[in-house]
Amino acid sequence: MPIIQINLVEGRDDKVVSECVREVARTVSRTLDAPLASVRVMVNVIKPQFFAVGDVTKAESAAQKDKS
Amino acid sequence: MPIIQINLVEGRDDKVVSECVREVARTVSRTLDAPLASVRVMVNVIKPQFFAVGDVTKAESAAQKDKS
Amino acid sequence: MPIIQINLVEGRDDKVVSECVREVARTVSRTLDAPLASVRVMVNVIKPQFFAVGDVTKAESAAQKDKS
Amino acid sequence: MPIIQINLVEGRDDKVVSECVREVARTVSRTLDAPLASVRVMVNVIKPQFFAVGDVTKAESAAQKDKS
Amino acid sequence: MPIIQINLVEGRDDKVVSECVREVARTVSRTLDAPLASVRVMVNVIKPQFFAVGDVTKAESAAQKDKS
Amino acid sequence: MPIIQINLVEGRDDKVVSECVREVARTVSRTLDAPLASVRVMVNVIKPQFFAVGDVTKAESAAQKDKS
Repeated sequence: MPIIQINLVEGRDDKVVSECVREVARTVSRTLDAPLASVRVMVNVIKPQFFAVGDVTKAESAAQKDKS
Repeated sequence: MPIIQINLVEGRDDKVVSECVREVARTVSRTLDAPLASVRVMVNVIKPQFFAVGDVTKAESAAQKDKS
Repeated sequence: MPIIQINLVEGRDDKVVSECVREVARTVSRTLDAPLASVRVMVNVIKPQFFAVGDVTKAESAAQKDKS
Repeated sequence: MPIIQINLVEGRDDKVVSECVREVARTVSRTLDAPLASVRVMVNVIKPQFFAVGDVTKAESAAQKDKS
Repeated sequence: MPIIQINLVEGRDDKVVSECVREVARTVSRTLDAPLASVRVMVNVIKPQFFAVGDVTKAESAAQKDKS
Repeated sequence: MPIIQINLVEGRDDKVVSECVREVARTVSRTLDAPLASVRVMVNVIKPQFFAVGDVTKAESAAQKDKS
């Protein structure tokens, strides 16, 4: 019955994220010996200006990178 | 003080989801004997390609259904 | 596929909480027209000193009630 | 390593929310004596019709306010 | 910056769960091309009487299995 | 109506965590101009062997620190 929530900053290609979802389901099933069909994986996408590492949002760190 | 988070795959009519939110609040208040005004219910909507049962995303299972 | 997380302050009888879990599952299934077996409900129990309404924790408000 | 999730009803200016994210990171770092760079803060924005206080959604209470 | 929350029913050996945590971190890093050190994985353990599939808690389904 | 979830590794003194909860509530109220009484803050405590930075759990990094 494992239920996995993946929180990601917006910006990756949908196909890449879907592949991550599938692979995480398989990894959890394998390592926990849980039936694959019992695993649920869901992704929560977050706007870069609403995700901070320390007190710097992802939007700010991206803007700083562009300037450098 | 119960706080409820409902995670749903995108696609249902807003009115249906709002009714679910109201009914869940009443159910929680009744069964836990918690004042209705103290209950919080919130819904998190997830894109079908970002929600998987096992290693099959909802987008894929919907596409397979359309083909069959 | 609805997945519901209920956050509760510690202190209620397990049987009462289990009944709430079952009733919420039925309510969600009914209102969203989702198969009952597809619904997942889980409860997260929180210590009273780690749950605050405004800047008053549940442990503090309980202690104030005892004094009054 | 504190990881903070802030759930908000849609409607506030992005700049205001980003400032809240930064300030919460600083507050958590200060009060828990955790290195600022180790703190993660993320915001989850919820549609007003999908957030209820008791059995009244934010969309409904906003509509009632407009009428009064 | 991916942050992953794994919700599990109580009962597995800590070592098995820790291995799942490590493997999920590697899978997410690989599939999202995110630096491994930027990934956070955390596990939330739930009592069997507080986790339901449909309207049957894990405690009940375990008890029914014991009887059969 | 902001609802804040703080995820922390086990090990800090309850009083320190409660103070963090109160201060975060005040910070959110101030920066979002939300009534303090409308803010909810809750803490989720995670066992060190169930929290990983990259593929190293907090229990492992603590053990490595003790050895060095």
